[in-house]
Amino acid sequence: MPLRRRTIIQSLGTLLCATLLAVVVGLPGVSAKPLDPLPSWNPGAAKDSILTFVSQTTDTRSPEFIPAEERIATFDQDGTLWVEHPMYTQVMYILERVPELVKSKPELAQEKPYATVLSGLSGDRTSLESLTVPDLEKLAAATLTGMPLVTFNQEVKRWLATAKHPRWKRPYTELTYQPMQELLKLLRAKGYRTYIATGGGQDFVRVYAEEVYGIPPEQVIGTAGSTRYGYTSTGKPFLTKEPRLLLDNNNAGKPEGIHLMIGRRPTAAFGNSTGDRQMLEYTKAGGEANLAMIVLHDDASREYAYGPAQGLPDTKVGTFTQELYDEAKQEGWVVISMQNDWKQIFSFEG
Amino acid sequence: MPLRRRTIIQSLGTLLCATLLAVVVGLPGVSAKPLDPLPSWNPGAAKDSILTFVSQTTDTRSPEFIPAEERIATFDQDGTLWVEHPMYTQVMYILERVPELVKSKPELAQEKPYATVLSGLSGDRTSLESLTVPDLEKLAAATLTGMPLVTFNQEVKRWLATAKHPRWKRPYTELTYQPMQELLKLLRAKGYRTYIATGGGQDFVRVYAEEVYGIPPEQVIGTAGSTRYGYTSTGKPFLTKEPRLLLDNNNAGKPEGIHLMIGRRPTAAFGNSTGDRQMLEYTKAGGEANLAMIVLHDDASREYAYGPAQGLPDTKVGTFTQELYDEAKQEGWVVISMQNDWKQIFSFEG
Repeated sequence: MPLRRRTIIQSLGTLLCATLLAVVVGLPGVSAKPLDPLPSWNPGAAKDSILTFVSQTTDTRSPEFIPAEERIATFDQDGTLWVEHPMYTQVMYILERVPELVKSKPELAQEKPYATVLSGLSGDRTSLESLTVPDLEKLAAATLTGMPLVTFNQEVKRWLATAKHPRWKRPYTELTYQPMQELLKLLRAKGYRTYIATGGGQDFVRVYAEEVYGIPPEQVIGTAGSTRYGYTSTGKPFLTKEPRLLLDNNNAGKPEGIHLMIGRRPTAAFGNSTGDRQMLEYTKAGGEANLAMIVLHDDASREYAYGPAQGLPDTKVGTFTQELYDEAKQEGWVVISMQNDWKQIFSFEG
Repeated sequence: MPLRRRTIIQSLGTLLCATLLAVVVGLPGVSAKPLDPLPSWNPGAAKDSILTFVSQTTDTRSPEFIPAEERIATFDQDGTLWVEHPMYTQVMYILERVPELVKSKPELAQEKPYATVLSGLSGDRTSLESLTVPDLEKLAAATLTGMPLVTFNQEVKRWLATAKHPRWKRPYTELTYQPMQELLKLLRAKGYRTYIATGGGQDFVRVYAEEVYGIPPEQVIGTAGSTRYGYTSTGKPFLTKEPRLLLDNNNAGKPEGIHLMIGRRPTAAFGNSTGDRQMLEYTKAGGEANLAMIVLHDDASREYAYGPAQGLPDTKVGTFTQELYDEAKQEGWVVISMQNDWKQIFSFEG
């Protein structure tokens, strides 16, 4: 019975190896204190919630154990993974694409809202504040749709390589929060799949999510328009970005988008504004073991302070109302205070 | 330097283990011939194409090597992974749900198309053939939408547990093709992620895809309607299935749906009908290393024979035209002849 014999001998080999390794690793004087997986987090309730959740849901002996295939964590992006003030990065992209657009269609230079954007970018920034929602929708349609998908991807890449945040004068992709990067890595190390669930454009975020967050394109859920399949003049198939909206991935659209794209309820979710409310509710309603966390921007000196929850200044970008704060406290979501819970905010501070 | 010392000692342990295992496994007389990963495939061009593709794209020394994260394989379901004749399984579900529907709304019993379905199911099967596309759309809306997602999932599960295919008198979930099951397993063993890209309902297929094919819900792309987020009377959030169509995952909709859900081009794709044409074209256009395969149902005795390609009988269910056959041959897609390439079709034959 050669097959049976092989199995026994192999098992014996494996057993010997395990014993040998245990002896080697267990030698006195060679043990090391385990590294803190969240060094940018201050000790406190927020950090503890994460560590407890991760340890309980991944320990097979724990009643809260979650099988690996169900370990799904969803993260809002703007204001949760990276800076969203003074304006969402993708809105900056839409505005800063206008000069290029006008180059190829000079007649637009005299038209509203393009003229407003051109004058705003060339100095009078306050004129940008007069842009209305229909203006922004028109600009979004013109800069985000109507071109082949590959062209769009190249344009976004090129912009990201040169665009700078007005305050830090650094590429937007450097303005991710170091504590959240550590959290993403910790969750993945423990078998969680990390998803972005953003109100931003799905195709936009996919361009850089893998490089910036280690999140592959198939794990980016965002506001999505349709594409149209077609052929080049030589018969090569390609996709064109179309203006038809398929998924408005904000508010109730977040759990709806999560269902469309994953088909499972997350066991952990992270947000920072009213647009994340339903995602956090949906996650929290899903059984015993779950984690919902929400970032409160209360650190004007190191980043920004806005709410209007807890008496912080009001804002239209990433609004966190007092009502949402009260719901968080009542429903057992963990509020992350940027000021108190984060020892370091950006990697370049270190 | 305890850390450095530990590393060296551990490395030593690992080296010893590797040596020990090599010695144990390499003992004379205990080696075994590698198992054929595709035992249900007859030797021939189709089987060779798979084995060559898998070996070339996963061998780091090969010029066709594909990094693990880009190893995406998409499979049509009906007629590619399981039987689609005499009628798509989901259409059988829609028809066989009608009696339950009428129980809760008795006034429907006299109405077209419900009356037609009731009489068809109770004996006169030919009356079902008079159902028009608008009839089927009406029946689909009534049986697939308007209920909470969890209710729908339970109804599908219950039906699958009792429904039987008219020819084999077995559950539909037993009518998957054994050669394709082996192919799915082989690809996954080689680091490919296997997706379903079906014209069938995304939520419908997700109910059983993990158990039947080992494909998790997040890797099922199908025709998808929207859901609506809401609350029960006690404030618990839940999703309701809505009739609004988001994605018609057929024809050009397949590459569009694949982009929406994955954001990457597949490196391998498998289909059997005109509805798969664009997915196969899109896959084949994606660089040097790719594989497109298409199943020809030419085995009336063991399964079914339909085309109308190659003079096979015409059909409305899973049409494979001569034009598509010619495109396959011209573009280097591999045609799988069910009769010649598959040694065994169903697992229960073995």
